Amino acid sequence: MAGTNKRRPAVLGGPAVVLVEPQLGENIGMVARAMLNCGLTDLRLVSPRDGWPNPAAVSVAAGAATVLDGAALFETAAEAVGDLNRVYAATARPRGMVKPVVTPRAAAADMRAAAGRGEAVGILFGPERAGLTNDDLTLAGQVIAVPLNPAFASLNLAQAALILGYEWFQAGDSTPARSLALDGNTPAAREELANFFTRLEAALDEDGFFHPEEKRAGMVRNLRNVFARADLTDVEVRTLHGVLSALAKVRKRRGGD
Amino acid sequence: MAGTNKRRPAVLGGPAVVLVEPQLGENIGMVARAMLNCGLTDLRLVSPRDGWPNPAAVSVAAGAATVLDGAALFETAAEAVGDLNRVYAATARPRGMVKPVVTPRAAAADMRAAAGRGEAVGILFGPERAGLTNDDLTLAGQVIAVPLNPAFASLNLAQAALILGYEWFQAGDSTPARSLALDGNTPAAREELANFFTRLEAALDEDGFFHPEEKRAGMVRNLRNVFARADLTDVEVRTLHGVLSALAKVRKRRGGD
Repeated sequence: MAGTNKRRPAVLGGPAVVLVEPQLGENIGMVARAMLNCGLTDLRLVSPRDGWPNPAAVSVAAGAATVLDGAALFETAAEAVGDLNRVYAATARPRGMVKPVVTPRAAAADMRAAAGRGEAVGILFGPERAGLTNDDLTLAGQVIAVPLNPAFASLNLAQAALILGYEWFQAGDSTPARSLALDGNTPAAREELANFFTRLEAALDEDGFFHPEEKRAGMVRNLRNVFARADLTDVEVRTLHGVLSALAKVRKRRGGD
Repeated sequence: MAGTNKRRPAVLGGPAVVLVEPQLGENIGMVARAMLNCGLTDLRLVSPRDGWPNPAAVSVAAGAATVLDGAALFETAAEAVGDLNRVYAATARPRGMVKPVVTPRAAAADMRAAAGRGEAVGILFGPERAGLTNDDLTLAGQVIAVPLNPAFASLNLAQAALILGYEWFQAGDSTPARSLALDGNTPAAREELANFFTRLEAALDEDGFFHPEEKRAGMVRNLRNVFARADLTDVEVRTLHGVLSALAKVRKRRGGD
């Protein structure tokens, strides 16, 4: 039953995802998708209930069928983790057993560190209903428990794999936490913004908008802050100039009222 | 079409989840589950394709049916976000539009801060295939883009909601990153561990295990480190004493060879 790729070297650095006795093919397919979303490809199946390959898995995997094609098959969880240096168990806090428990985020940091030392890591997931047996839990050095609403904490297999894969990906990702999608635009130079303020305030002065005079400075600052906060592009500043011109025309047509 | 709970105050602090023209009832049900997993309950539906209520949503929601029961119905996205102070759009990086882009983690931190100031926040999700229109995007101050494998980045609706809800939950959660599940056990006092070492090393001395003598100190340290690292409980130290006694009996029975 065990595939020939059983002992392939775990070179990718990402954790192997080991599904112990998964029941539904659809869930295996959804796990494959979640894995590929997170850049993971080392899928290992231990005695899947409905045999392998499983058309139901392929039908939901879509673009992640390649992960299914590369899946390795094992008869026992012990064999599936045999070449790994560090094994985690995805499960609730263990009962009747003393075991370190880590959050997905801490596990991801630890797995990244282990991979950086050249260690092969993996995560065990139990069958959909029963979860991992205590015997399988002894294969893992740590348990990963996802902090969630304690009144409704159960995740399905693919969701659990997604959360752990997501944390793995984030731990190695350098996307800035906050950025500006400019779509080819250029943020306005501060002098363009200053020109706009000058023109806007002159128009408002002409209309007697800043009234009474002692409140003028504060009102000007408030208005400037609105636009300063907006991260305007040069095109947007030109658009705002156009708005001023158009409003001036309207006023002129109405006879300057 | 709009429900009577349309203007209920957003008192929970957690973001409202606004599904714009969702297509499949199953997806709405899965979103409800993902929301409740993360302690979110304010679900808002904008013109769901198959009407509302939708039995297909109920059938997959299981314990999260309460979230569906409380869902508010709107005709436009603008109405659905009317009472919110801060709106995010869950989508890919926007095209043809200048918009701040944040990671789910940064968004969660910002939403927690906003909720702490008493602001009502929400996240817009577009229809399954098309995503949010550019018009709907103008309702949002920020876009939340999930950093994932760029070659396979698409998430389904419920998975996207789960990731954002997960980050919201983590941002307010105090679960220690690393802990030890003791299951009622007590970590061994250091003197219990020292007694075990003394007995183990005496037994090994008797057997001539520490050979040659100049390596004894290093070997003792290595052995002690194995057990020191294991976070032994008092029960486990007693078990190890039992193991020593049992092995000693075996040796005696064999005539002390």
